[in-house]
Parts: sequence; C-alpha cells; structure tokens
Amino acid sequence: MNNDLILLGHGSGGRLSHQLLDELIIPQLSSVPVAGQNDAALLNIGGIKLAFSTDSYVVDPVFFPGGNIGDLAINGTVNDLAMMGARPLCLSVGFILEEGFSKAELARILASMREAADAAGVAIVTGDTKVVPKGKGDRIFINTSGIGAVEHNLHIDGASAQVGDKVIVNGSIGDHGIAVLSAREGLEIDSGIQSDSAPLNGLVADLLPLGPALHVLRDPTRGGVATTLKEIALQSGVTITLDEKSLPVNPGVKGVCSILGLDPLYVANEGKLLAFVAPEQAEAALAAMRRHPLGKDAAIIGEVTETSAGKVQMETLVGGVRGVEMLAGEQLPRIC
Amino acid sequence: MNNDLILLGHGSGGRLSHQLLDELIIPQLSSVPVAGQNDAALLNIGGIKLAFSTDSYVVDPVFFPGGNIGDLAINGTVNDLAMMGARPLCLSVGFILEEGFSKAELARILASMREAADAAGVAIVTGDTKVVPKGKGDRIFINTSGIGAVEHNLHIDGASAQVGDKVIVNGSIGDHGIAVLSAREGLEIDSGIQSDSAPLNGLVADLLPLGPALHVLRDPTRGGVATTLKEIALQSGVTITLDEKSLPVNPGVKGVCSILGLDPLYVANEGKLLAFVAPEQAEAALAAMRRHPLGKDAAIIGEVTETSAGKVQMETLVGGVRGVEMLAGEQLPRIC
Repeated sequence: MNNDLILLGHGSGGRLSHQLLDELIIPQLSSVPVAGQNDAALLNIGGIKLAFSTDSYVVDPVFFPGGNIGDLAINGTVNDLAMMGARPLCLSVGFILEEGFSKAELARILASMREAADAAGVAIVTGDTKVVPKGKGDRIFINTSGIGAVEHNLHIDGASAQVGDKVIVNGSIGDHGIAVLSAREGLEIDSGIQSDSAPLNGLVADLLPLGPALHVLRDPTRGGVATTLKEIALQSGVTITLDEKSLPVNPGVKGVCSILGLDPLYVANEGKLLAFVAPEQAEAALAAMRRHPLGKDAAIIGEVTETSAGKVQMETLVGGVRGVEMLAGEQLPRIC
Repeated sequence: MNNDLILLGHGSGGRLSHQLLDELIIPQLSSVPVAGQNDAALLNIGGIKLAFSTDSYVVDPVFFPGGNIGDLAINGTVNDLAMMGARPLCLSVGFILEEGFSKAELARILASMREAADAAGVAIVTGDTKVVPKGKGDRIFINTSGIGAVEHNLHIDGASAQVGDKVIVNGSIGDHGIAVLSAREGLEIDSGIQSDSAPLNGLVADLLPLGPALHVLRDPTRGGVATTLKEIALQSGVTITLDEKSLPVNPGVKGVCSILGLDPLYVANEGKLLAFVAPEQAEAALAAMRRHPLGKDAAIIGEVTETSAGKVQMETLVGGVRGVEMLAGEQLPRIC
C-alpha cells in the first residue's frame, strides 16, 4: 500500500476516509475537525437558520434494483439536510457525463430525479453539466447540494448523545449496499433485495414533535450502521451498546452477506436513519416512526450505556459482547 | 455523429450544451427554459434573498499557468454568485478522486482552494469526498456549490439588456483557455499566458453603487465572450454590436489563436465579466472598474444597438460587419 496515493478506501466513509479528511482536507478547508462534523453545515444568514449539504454520487452500476443514481442523488442530499432536522427546500444538480453515455439512459435518470424531488417536496433550482472524454469518467457522476430551513431550536447533533438514550433505526439494514452489489457486473446475484433509497424528511418531520428528547439523527450510508454509530460514540464521548438480536436484517441481505463474508452492520443504507432519543420518549419515537410508511419496521437496536472515550459494542446472539469498530478499508466501493 | 449519445460538445457551454439542456435536462428538472437561466438561482427564504449556484470542474490538465483546478473551483462559483450581484457567503466542496491520485498534488490543490477562499472572503462549510477506481475518473474532479446574499434591489439579469447599453469587459479575453491549452499534454506551447482565474465579487461590489443603470452581469467562461453575449442577446431580445478594435486581447493569446485557428471571442475566461450599463453611467462604470486591480484594462467593447430576436454582430477591423454566433461544437474540451 503506497501511503502517498489515494486509495479506494479513502472513499469508503470509514477509517481511511476519516484519515484523509483529518490529515489533508480538513486542515486546509475547515475549522471543524472531522469528529465534530455533521451531515450538513448549519448557517445563520440574516437571522434565518439554514442547513447546507453536498454529496457526489458515483454509484456503480448506475441502475440497480430499487433505484438509480438519479433518485439516489436527490434522496441522499435530502436526507443529509433532514438529519439536521431541517426542512429541505432546494437542490442544485451537477452532472459529469462521459462522452458516449446514452441519452436514453440519461433521460431515465432525469425522470427518476424529477420523481424523487417531487416525492421529497424539494425544488431543483440550479445546475451544471460537464462532459469528459470517453475513458476519463464512468458514464455519469452527479453532485447534489441542498439548502434546508431549520425551523426548530433543538440541538440535534452527533455530539448530543446521552447515557440512557435509546438507539432507534427505522427499518432493515444493509438493503442498499446488497441491492447495488447484486447488480454489479460479474457478480449478478438474484437476492431479491431492493435498495431502500428514500427521502427521510417526512419521517423526521414526524419525530421533531418529540422536542428536546431527540438528541441525534444520522443516516448510516457509506460504512453502514457500525461506522455511523462509532462516529456518534466518538463525537459524544459515550459507549453505545447494540443488541444483535434486535437488528432488523432482511433474509436476502443475511444470505448474500453470509455468502460473501460481509457484515450487514457495515453495509450502506440510503433510506435509513438512526435516532438517539431520551429513554422516556423512546416508545413515543418508535410509535411515531411505525406510523410512517418508511418506519413500519422501526426497532430499538441499542442504547447509550456509559460515558467513555467513544466505544461501540454489541451483545451478540450467542450471549457475548464484541467491539464494533469503524469500517477499516473499503468493503464495497462505489456504493453511492 | 450519433444523435443518441452524449458528445464532448454537450459540455462546451455552447449550442450543443443548450440543446442538451433544452431537450433533456430542463424539461425534467426545471420550470425555467435555458434561455431564461442566469448564473445562479435567486431564492427568497423567510424574506432573505439568496443566490445559489453550482459548478463541477474537470479541467485538464489539473495544474496550468496561473492556477489549478482548486482555485478555479472556488473562483468559478464565487463568480457565478457575484454575477447576480450577490455577496458570496459560503461554499460546499465535493471531490471525486481517481484511485492512485497523488496526495501531494491533492495537498497543493487544497492549499490553493484555501487561498482562493480567503481572497474571496468565503467560508468552505461542508464537503464530500468520493474515490473511483483507476481508469474510471481523471485524477480529480471538484464540484463547488455556493450561497450568496443578495443585498440590493436591482434587477441584474440576462434579460435586462436595453438598447443603448454599453458592454464593458474588465480586461483581456481568452487568457484562461489559452493558458490551459498551452499546458495540455502533447501541445506544450510556451505562450507566456497565465490563466485569469480570479474572484470577481470585489469588482462587482464596486459596480453595485451604479444602481439601476447596471443591467446585466455575466462571466464569459465556457464558450467565451461570443457565446455569453449571444445568450444575453437572446434573453433580452436585442442586437449587440461589438467593435473588434476595442477588444482587449493579449498578444500571446492572439499568437496562439492564430496558430491554432481559434477565435479569442470563443475562448474561456475565468476572471472576466461583461457588464451592460446604461449609457449615461457607462463612463462611471468604466472608471470604477479601472480603479480595481482586476479591472485596470477594462474597456467598452460594444453596445446594444436595437431590439431584435437576439443577435450579436461585430464591426470588424477591416470595416465590415459579421455575425457572431454561439460556439457550435467543442472548441477546447475540459477548459474548466
């Protein structure tokens, strides 16, 4: 491994991504260390509180069961805004197309973007299109950036987890990663799994009435639930203890993971959120989620058990306890 | 030419770009036809007026005389906001890195971004980093999106050009395109030309006191001055008449253009703006520009001569008049 070059793992969202950010990118571009970063920036412009976020999408293949790069790009940025408790208002879209890409496929992607934007209730207000020569890109990359209105006074933040908080997920984990993987060239597996790509802003709107009991919201995309929880544990300085038997995992995801030696805890999601809620409001949060179509399989999967330097552990099915670390390298490249 | 596929020219910023936008992208993603589009979207959020813009940068080579993809990405989005008369506030940054890209080169690019952001007075507040496998990208692509505050009540718009307006440019044209071209592999030409990449928000701030006499601001990037003027002529429904002898063109740019058969009117700029100003304020505008370091070679290069369906023409050095059309195909791919 050459330490002077960018590796695929630097895009994993896991430990190598954090290293690249902490060593190179953050020192130049930001005053906030990676451990203090959330899914979007909070801005105060003329007394108006806004959230602002960006993501580039390079998923391979471009079309996969349950979605394509277009709806993924809309939902992904909508969700990053929603994780700040913001109401997504508008998006920008930047395309990098490879010469020779099919206009018909572009049209399908655009139609999905339109549908996804309508479903999320966001406007696409500005854009840009670049073309690179054949062999200098890969069909289509999409960047979306978004602005949301922060209309609450809660302190929803990765650093806000408290001892006693229940950790709630709105449904089964790992579906997006396995859906993309199963569609990948040379590895066509008929898992029957669809991507969970979906806009979470409606679900978040239903959680905001919980008020100050709502401590953390985070969508476990690249790096999966494990990496996201480890980030929160580090940010908040707490230990999070998961209960393995309560983790909702679809049988198809379990099957593919066991064949390929993957752990669903590290597989990407694109329509899931993790909510940390004070214990006295946890049942209310669970009930609110279950009333929403995107939360009907919501489950409490763990809790914050103690103050510490930032640890995630899991009580396993067989009764032991194992440590859960951040994704180390790159489990599934180009998953979003 | 296969009409079903994306061509390099679809990224030119010229006629093919407009076709792709009008036929495929705009009908799905926007309610505003390409002819009505400006460099950034105007938003009104809770009574606060904001500008919002995005651009992806795929310039080849990544380093060129006078700059690199990093400062280009900062200045480009700063300028798109400035062309709405907005004060750029903050940017997002999205990287798509190719596996194997050098960390040392990334560090140089990041340092340039930091410097450019500081020079423009904008904060980088949020970001994203993806990595694609070797051969699926080209070293580094950068998207920047930006938010600016619109603190004026002027109607600065590509549709606001009026008969009598003087067209002012803040300096020599074509430098960026020729600087990039001269650094391109296999074509190393020692033109001595540096890119003009620069943040124009300070210059625009000096023009805003002109008030309602300031009709249009637009930065002639891809497609050059010709394409940008043609867009404005179409948007405003006017004829713009250029005076060839007044066009500021550096001798090095002239030389390379004549060798390669290029027209500086179509070559990209990254630190230039075109201002349309009511005639009674034109000299004041010119003087304001010339007081600014980025406007000391400012010149009046033409005027709006009549109402029409949207025409640009040029009085040539030899005393004739020729039509000026939009860039048709792709003169210089990946210029920004």
